[in-house]
Amino acid sequence: MNQILAHLSANEDVSLQQLLEFLAIGSVSTDPTRAGDVQHCATWLADHLRTIGMPTVEIHQTAGHPIVYAEHLGAGPDKPTVLMYGHYDVQPVDPIDLWTNPPFEPTLRDGKVFARGATDDKGQVFIHVKAVEAMLATSGSLPVNLKMLIEGEEEIGSPNLTPFVREHRERLACDAVVVSDTAMFAPGEPSIVYGLRGLAYLQIDVQGPNRDLHSGSYGGPVANPLNALCTIIGKMKDEQGRVTIPGFYDDVLDVSDQERAELAGLQYSDERLKGDVGVTALGGESGFSSVEKLWTRPTLDVNGIYGGFTGEGAKTVLPAKGMAKVSMRLVPHQEHHDIARKVQDFVNSITPPGITATVTDLHGADPVLVPRDAPAMHAAARALMRDEARIPPAIAVCNLAVEDAGDSFTLMVVEFFRGHEGDTDA
Amino acid sequence: MNQILAHLSANEDVSLQQLLEFLAIGSVSTDPTRAGDVQHCATWLADHLRTIGMPTVEIHQTAGHPIVYAEHLGAGPDKPTVLMYGHYDVQPVDPIDLWTNPPFEPTLRDGKVFARGATDDKGQVFIHVKAVEAMLATSGSLPVNLKMLIEGEEEIGSPNLTPFVREHRERLACDAVVVSDTAMFAPGEPSIVYGLRGLAYLQIDVQGPNRDLHSGSYGGPVANPLNALCTIIGKMKDEQGRVTIPGFYDDVLDVSDQERAELAGLQYSDERLKGDVGVTALGGESGFSSVEKLWTRPTLDVNGIYGGFTGEGAKTVLPAKGMAKVSMRLVPHQEHHDIARKVQDFVNSITPPGITATVTDLHGADPVLVPRDAPAMHAAARALMRDEARIPPAIAVCNLAVEDAGDSFTLMVVEFFRGHEGDTDA
Repeated sequence: MNQILAHLSANEDVSLQQLLEFLAIGSVSTDPTRAGDVQHCATWLADHLRTIGMPTVEIHQTAGHPIVYAEHLGAGPDKPTVLMYGHYDVQPVDPIDLWTNPPFEPTLRDGKVFARGATDDKGQVFIHVKAVEAMLATSGSLPVNLKMLIEGEEEIGSPNLTPFVREHRERLACDAVVVSDTAMFAPGEPSIVYGLRGLAYLQIDVQGPNRDLHSGSYGGPVANPLNALCTIIGKMKDEQGRVTIPGFYDDVLDVSDQERAELAGLQYSDERLKGDVGVTALGGESGFSSVEKLWTRPTLDVNGIYGGFTGEGAKTVLPAKGMAKVSMRLVPHQEHHDIARKVQDFVNSITPPGITATVTDLHGADPVLVPRDAPAMHAAARALMRDEARIPPAIAVCNLAVEDAGDSFTLMVVEFFRGHEGDTDA
Repeated sequence: MNQILAHLSANEDVSLQQLLEFLAIGSVSTDPTRAGDVQHCATWLADHLRTIGMPTVEIHQTAGHPIVYAEHLGAGPDKPTVLMYGHYDVQPVDPIDLWTNPPFEPTLRDGKVFARGATDDKGQVFIHVKAVEAMLATSGSLPVNLKMLIEGEEEIGSPNLTPFVREHRERLACDAVVVSDTAMFAPGEPSIVYGLRGLAYLQIDVQGPNRDLHSGSYGGPVANPLNALCTIIGKMKDEQGRVTIPGFYDDVLDVSDQERAELAGLQYSDERLKGDVGVTALGGESGFSSVEKLWTRPTLDVNGIYGGFTGEGAKTVLPAKGMAKVSMRLVPHQEHHDIARKVQDFVNSITPPGITATVTDLHGADPVLVPRDAPAMHAAARALMRDEARIPPAIAVCNLAVEDAGDSFTLMVVEFFRGHEGDTDA
């Protein structure tokens, strides 16, 4: 290990220049005019993986942007196989005015790199690449069999990842997946993310009269779909912030006392959260701490609502219709299809006479929980302890939807930063 | 009376041609390019009033469109004074495609006149003018002192009427006001409108976090302003459709058993209403008939609501803010300022922690009720009975806001049609 660290130190300047080169490629996956840059970025990355000694490196063209895949299976069948996932595409750069330096002209300030993609996800991908390079350079081998899957469409919803994973299920088989595309609990606190909340995202459309009516000429006997929509949504939670949809909590895994104690030990600051989002009080389900609400409890949020007259001033319309987008963050072992059905049943059961409510399941993902005592989890924790021995690894449930994980994977999500990346918050 | 009716019959063709001429003037008050037409219409009407023998006819220029004012005070101080209100401006004509004939080329079909303004309000104004003409032509006098106030800005909210009324309060003094700008209960059922519901129109703005957040990263501990907005609005009514805002019904005048019986006698058809608006069931406050809900009970309707992501698909935003427009139809003796305050107090009392709610009073009008046993009411009823003796006058509460009535008026609203007007429903 000391040899590896020494190699990394000795090559720090070269590695940094390579990272800046990687970051300078404007691989914005959502921008059609950048398609050439995305392709170039895949080629650059594949070339680099060959340079560091990965014996198998492939660029797989897809219906969209290419997937870079590399293998080093030299550890042999007795050793575990780890699949590293990352992405080389980046978010758009608008609003460009808010950038201190141009987003694709990586700039060092205060020992941090500022560029689009520096922390999402090129920086993290590059750390893995450099770790592999250092191991191969010093010992000529890796302690595990390694598969690297680095896609170019994460920022646009990974439309071609699932087909790729399904098609190459056997080739991608592994004992653990390492994903470094989440977040640390706090600066300087490396975190292992062992769970992801799921999502059930629904749209509720309500229809009352067949046209917008004058609220003076019809208000009273004609039921108002916007009142109904508010009432329906209002009834979805009680005064304690608990979701009242029958069966909603049936499959919710209770968090153990030990895990609650560990979460409490994180010293999550309500004051910092309040200051961050600019509120004087927090909300949510009573009986749980903020970090528990955020990581271990399901939610129900209205993401959008619309109907009737929304311009300046007063218009006395009794609207024909309205809609709301309502989504729920799910926790193990809730299933998004099951929750969507329960919401539909609930809405149907409380829709008032004269109103038609239609619930559409727009999107969903089941929650994920990786056993905290899995060998790979212990290995990841040891690695982080060794690297920054003063800080115990924060073990946390993360809250991102797990759309990217193919269903043949055992998912383990590991986050390790080394503190010299930065990304303008654009 | 027979002489008067004979005069009207003898001159029917001439009167109809004059009406068509009046209707052909495109006096759209909201359209700046039509300002000349509005002015021309006022001049045409004033000239016509002089022609029929009104001794005093004036065009009062205002900050907007002119007010036509005429007087015939020959009945003398022992006789009552009646002020007739009407308007000569009309609604815009869009969508123009839905018109069978051009809106300012009045056309007769099935004995009805189709033109913009035929039933709102030029047709009704013209009936009054022709009645006055017939009386003056046959007897040289009127049985009451008559003041006619015909404005050109009704369709844009009468911005210059109240200043005019205040300025000429003494000159406009009268015992009764006749307004023929409401509606009949049903075709062939002349109606005396003796009440108008009022209006309290509020906007509720809710603010949660200082910016739109990711519902995965913040959902749970951070209160969602759209959930709060729905909950607040949902709590404004109970399961029986009654408004739950404390004190809301304190000043509501109960309708007498006799009046309820008369309303029941109107044979208001719930089936027709359901068919008209395309619903399978009606709503509203339990314990009241549809016509009672419509004319004698206050309401609470959401007129519009907006917040968060409302585009296609799913975006997991925890929105910073939202707003709803909520209005209440008021009945005697509710006062709109008082109701607005009660809503504000209620919203403040139930706004959850972490959310700021601001209630803005956008617009209001107090309800109006004219005593059903006033002499002018009896006179109006007798007039309608005489005219169409087979149909008793339907006596009904109307539901229009009474913004136009200056506060020095005793308001009485009379509607009498003679069945040969029509207006394309554009």
